[in-house]
Amino acid sequence: MSPDQTQQSFYGEFKVDALLVSWLPNVRYLSGFTGSNGMVLLTPDSMTLFTDPRYAIQAAQESRGKVVVAKGPLVKTAGQAIKRKKLKRIGFEKSHLCFDTWEALKEMLQLGAGLKPVGALIEKWRMVKSPQEIGRIRHAVNTNSRAFTAAIKTVKPGMTEAELAAELEYQMRRGGAEKPSFDTIVASGARTALPHAQPGPQRFREHEVVLIDMGATRDGYASDMTRMAFLGKPDPNTRKIYEAVLEAQLAAIDAVREGTTGGKVDRAARQSLKSKGLDKQFVHSTGHGLGLEIHEPPRLGKKDKTRLEAGMVITIEPGVYIEGSGGVRIEDTVLVTKNGCEVLTPTSKELMVL
Amino acid sequence: MSPDQTQQSFYGEFKVDALLVSWLPNVRYLSGFTGSNGMVLLTPDSMTLFTDPRYAIQAAQESRGKVVVAKGPLVKTAGQAIKRKKLKRIGFEKSHLCFDTWEALKEMLQLGAGLKPVGALIEKWRMVKSPQEIGRIRHAVNTNSRAFTAAIKTVKPGMTEAELAAELEYQMRRGGAEKPSFDTIVASGARTALPHAQPGPQRFREHEVVLIDMGATRDGYASDMTRMAFLGKPDPNTRKIYEAVLEAQLAAIDAVREGTTGGKVDRAARQSLKSKGLDKQFVHSTGHGLGLEIHEPPRLGKKDKTRLEAGMVITIEPGVYIEGSGGVRIEDTVLVTKNGCEVLTPTSKELMVL
Repeated sequence: MSPDQTQQSFYGEFKVDALLVSWLPNVRYLSGFTGSNGMVLLTPDSMTLFTDPRYAIQAAQESRGKVVVAKGPLVKTAGQAIKRKKLKRIGFEKSHLCFDTWEALKEMLQLGAGLKPVGALIEKWRMVKSPQEIGRIRHAVNTNSRAFTAAIKTVKPGMTEAELAAELEYQMRRGGAEKPSFDTIVASGARTALPHAQPGPQRFREHEVVLIDMGATRDGYASDMTRMAFLGKPDPNTRKIYEAVLEAQLAAIDAVREGTTGGKVDRAARQSLKSKGLDKQFVHSTGHGLGLEIHEPPRLGKKDKTRLEAGMVITIEPGVYIEGSGGVRIEDTVLVTKNGCEVLTPTSKELMVL
Repeated sequence: MSPDQTQQSFYGEFKVDALLVSWLPNVRYLSGFTGSNGMVLLTPDSMTLFTDPRYAIQAAQESRGKVVVAKGPLVKTAGQAIKRKKLKRIGFEKSHLCFDTWEALKEMLQLGAGLKPVGALIEKWRMVKSPQEIGRIRHAVNTNSRAFTAAIKTVKPGMTEAELAAELEYQMRRGGAEKPSFDTIVASGARTALPHAQPGPQRFREHEVVLIDMGATRDGYASDMTRMAFLGKPDPNTRKIYEAVLEAQLAAIDAVREGTTGGKVDRAARQSLKSKGLDKQFVHSTGHGLGLEIHEPPRLGKKDKTRLEAGMVITIEPGVYIEGSGGVRIEDTVLVTKNGCEVLTPTSKELMVL
């Protein structure tokens, strides 16, 4: 989205003179700046990026707007700019601005200007991706899948979870990723019942199942994929659960299209698992948007009413977790289209026996 | 610190009935919980961890206190617990609680209880590390240095910055790190003038300098180290700058001891560079605390008055950056002791010619 569109829409929608943006992914989205300390002040005819001296050179190279290098806290320099420009109604990001920054800004401005809490406005703009953004996500997804294919070849009994995580991340990096999109999850055996298990010193054993949940970030954009691998033939019960989760995942993918809601897609997965008596073991939502963040709107949970639109990129990832025994999750990154969706993740979902 | 000490000190110091802790490193410090969604409610006789269903099993395994699995936003469930326990004065972390969570809590409690903003209280407790924490940091620092030694052997002209970053991170992982403590910095040639350069497709060339800033996280605790490597003999000017930065780094290390302040240590580095006419090119502070976070109190900047105490772990990392030409930074992780300090980082600081 160009700054022009941006400025028009927030100005009209929220009746503010300016928006102070503090959430880094939003700062990056608006300005192009990729550093770890930045704030953007957006007015109908200007975009100013505030950062600190460490980023002076980088900000000048990256930012689409004016750059101000602040010596102290960014909010102080931003507050001074607000005063100098005589801006009166300042929107701020209420779910990102911390209490003390809000308080400092309020004190600086006193009666000179009013602060107006604004919800996830820029996150809403970010939901529908531009063709360039979709290209970057495709790139990330493919890097992710290629790394999986290369690393999975190294799996054998005796290897540790942490060693496989090292291989996966190395292959992502070698393939061009800046970093993993989140802490890579590798869990084996009964530990697969922990939806967010950290890879540990546990060694893979024959006939065990391994869960891999990984993402690659490229040019700032994330991917997200979960696959299961079996070291030897799984027992009939595990196979049954795998097939039930896959069926639920395909049912949810089938439900994705422009005009439906996150809640409806979630229901498709949940009802499929219910028919197998496994819905109570599905303890999280079916998916989430991704892009500059690994978790961003829309959410695909029970009650989510956000209307899906072509150009949104989401995950579809139902799972079943049985404490003490194990868990199964299958996840793809998916692009919403007018008439359905495109599953971006190219990796096979056939039950994989190593 | 045990929950008992914790409870006594906050109760006495802030005159609150309870403290609602939302910052994840503080949640982990208090409860032991390592997941990505948690809040702790601390009262003089109880500690309750709130998390979501994804972490039900993990939280039960890890937490030192009671665990409540919340179905919706954690703040709602925490607010209900506050009401049920009839707690009246609730401290919250003002630099971590976002405006909307504060507002939601305020509305839930209405006149039933008052909310009191509290500064970086738990961060203060976290500054002085326990022997167990120091052990973990040593472990992280050694993993970091071993990975550096292994990866630096692969450097040769034609290799890209991103490839070296991949090697460094792979070696850290293989050596037992959970993850890099921050986005690994590898910069070459003139790009070393960017203090936070992201590793890119740039290839190393003969007679170029490479800057590596890396950290390994083990058992939740971070390390931080910066080294320079030269592909062939550096020119006299670069050598002079390297020697000036090393001298400044040693001067700062020499100034570290219990009883001094962050500002005084910073001044030692800055004055050393001033004597060479290079202080204006030193655009950041001399160091920072590290532990569960890569940046935590104390800071070692110009104006920092925090008294250093034995058991604090800090970085010492002066740098000189000349736009268009290049930069030099040298950084160790250092343990403050009664009479001085122990440099934990074992990697040599001799000018390294590959």
